[in-house]
Amino acid sequence: MIKIGILGGGQLGRMFLQEAINYPTTVSVLDPSEDAPCAILSKNFVVGDFADEKTVIKFGQSVDTIGIEIEHVNVAALKRLQASGKRVIPSPDSLEIIQDKGRQKKFYAKHGIASPKFYLIQGKADLDVDTIFFPFVQKLRTGGYDGRGVQIIENEADLPKLWDAPSVIEAKCDIDKEIAVMVASDGRGEILSYPVFEMVFNAQLNQLDYVKAPAIINPDCTHQAIALAEKTALALGSPGLFAVEFFIDKDQQVWVNETAPRVHNSAHLTIEACATSQFDQMWRILCQQPLGTTQQYCPAAMLNLIGSEGCYGEAELPYLEELLAMDEVFVHWYGKAETRPGRKMGHVTVLAATEEKLAAKIKQVQKYLVVKSKASNISGGL
Amino acid sequence: MIKIGILGGGQLGRMFLQEAINYPTTVSVLDPSEDAPCAILSKNFVVGDFADEKTVIKFGQSVDTIGIEIEHVNVAALKRLQASGKRVIPSPDSLEIIQDKGRQKKFYAKHGIASPKFYLIQGKADLDVDTIFFPFVQKLRTGGYDGRGVQIIENEADLPKLWDAPSVIEAKCDIDKEIAVMVASDGRGEILSYPVFEMVFNAQLNQLDYVKAPAIINPDCTHQAIALAEKTALALGSPGLFAVEFFIDKDQQVWVNETAPRVHNSAHLTIEACATSQFDQMWRILCQQPLGTTQQYCPAAMLNLIGSEGCYGEAELPYLEELLAMDEVFVHWYGKAETRPGRKMGHVTVLAATEEKLAAKIKQVQKYLVVKSKASNISGGL
Repeated sequence: MIKIGILGGGQLGRMFLQEAINYPTTVSVLDPSEDAPCAILSKNFVVGDFADEKTVIKFGQSVDTIGIEIEHVNVAALKRLQASGKRVIPSPDSLEIIQDKGRQKKFYAKHGIASPKFYLIQGKADLDVDTIFFPFVQKLRTGGYDGRGVQIIENEADLPKLWDAPSVIEAKCDIDKEIAVMVASDGRGEILSYPVFEMVFNAQLNQLDYVKAPAIINPDCTHQAIALAEKTALALGSPGLFAVEFFIDKDQQVWVNETAPRVHNSAHLTIEACATSQFDQMWRILCQQPLGTTQQYCPAAMLNLIGSEGCYGEAELPYLEELLAMDEVFVHWYGKAETRPGRKMGHVTVLAATEEKLAAKIKQVQKYLVVKSKASNISGGL
Repeated sequence: MIKIGILGGGQLGRMFLQEAINYPTTVSVLDPSEDAPCAILSKNFVVGDFADEKTVIKFGQSVDTIGIEIEHVNVAALKRLQASGKRVIPSPDSLEIIQDKGRQKKFYAKHGIASPKFYLIQGKADLDVDTIFFPFVQKLRTGGYDGRGVQIIENEADLPKLWDAPSVIEAKCDIDKEIAVMVASDGRGEILSYPVFEMVFNAQLNQLDYVKAPAIINPDCTHQAIALAEKTALALGSPGLFAVEFFIDKDQQVWVNETAPRVHNSAHLTIEACATSQFDQMWRILCQQPLGTTQQYCPAAMLNLIGSEGCYGEAELPYLEELLAMDEVFVHWYGKAETRPGRKMGHVTVLAATEEKLAAKIKQVQKYLVVKSKASNISGGL
């Protein structure tokens, strides 16, 4: 029986555990937080820092195959584990490229993968507003996560807020749509893409409204995106799952924004909508089993359950019953100990027979996506 | 957050846990075996005997709602827990009827639910071969499980093997087909049936070959079966899941064989083939949430992974890779510590777009349903 070890015990690890239950393997999880979403579900849960070299080596030595659910892990440890004969997925080399957004951008340039124009700075002093003019994007080379460490500098008046740290300065794309492609690579030459996911944003709140598949984009964009995503996975040369995020600009050109070397929020709808979920696919890749078909059964959308403003502490889902009263609406609660404003507490997947029915269902579900805390009296939602 | 407690920690409990991960509840499990399939997955796993009154009361007091995954549990304890305000599903009264096959048969008779003719005996001395002539079926009133405690007495020569114990003597049905209907009852008047499942037997080996849905039977049998199943659930008057098993005789009459008051092997295909799996439905009923639609998406079959003859000890699935190389074939391994001849070690679900494709896929999957043990050299299968 293969012993799998996962670095990171958040919701992605939790949904992986949920899927791995189906198979004759054991899964150990390493996470610094003793009440991480994986903790309650695994007797092989180890409290420790996945960014610490010694901790990762010790954890890795206790298993056969090491996977990740977060990319901010100690690569030096993974290199040593790989050298000692452990299977590490994705490869430490590919992780090293992706962890540093500067290196990641250079990697795209080297391999002719379309990505917005950029240059690197060590700090504020290196800024050159003649190379890329306003508005531009500043991305911290390391440490950013889930939207943090990225800001838009609109004009000269914004310059004081520039971070004085090693960064990517990137041309701001004139975005028409944002999409993502999840690529599965078995490391033995087999590469499969899931259907293109479309991230639909709420312009008012400037946050993700929902992810849907298939994306409603022109077929040429679909082909460009899948070709670029598979080229990226191939160039990284590692087995694993790679979520490649794209901008489609107003001219319908497709540009790689960034790549996550792991299961990803944008692909959660694969649990219900596809023959093989991204978590099942992850297990197959970790265990050198055949990739599963990425076939999608019907139109689907995924909506995040986000902690409401002003709510802290033990969470409540006041409209769980309303959600469960709807057909083909699937609730995934992450079991986090506490809610906080903006925190991802769970998600909801919606399936429908047609695009029109899906759109109507999304509208209805959105009314019920309220995460409160027991301590608060916030009403929100309805 | 509702605290759920489940009596029994076998594969049914394990698949329930797997589904309950999606929701804001905690699940505790009581099982006598410290390496039961649920043990590794739950930090709230309690080692103890679910047939012992004191143990069940103590366990039940630590939770809000008590469910079962096996019916041989201590009913006296459940009655006391219910009286003390705990939610117990199914009701102890319905469990008491079902645990005793004699009482169960009288219940069908009382409610006009078609079931084969029978009489009860205390022991051998009570047998009356003029009331029900050969061949007939002897069923022990209590303690039977999974086919044990049931035997066919073909003729006078068979009489010596009659068990000298309280039994049901039942007319042997001239069986054309065996089917089952899973009914979900929320205890508030809402009752929903899943599509009819057909149990297909291997005549040579006299064992279940596979379960498929929808059953290929005439529409009148479908209606009879669903009506009888819902009548049974209604008469039991309890929330819960009830798997009602039927014989269809050569005259196409439908007869209730027996009822299981819980999730059931025959309904495993609902995990992939239906919008709401039986385990999700169980969670909804335990937590007083709305029942989920039982809509089936496409033809489906379920095949058990059974321990091979001569194989004991740590199990191996020699053809896992072949199974996973097929599209829409889903493996569920139960994580049992040891395989034994005839032991249910897992199951495989197969989906297909048409009946014809399903039949072809079943044939192919059957070649790979081999469970060996690491210690044995048995070849089997291919």
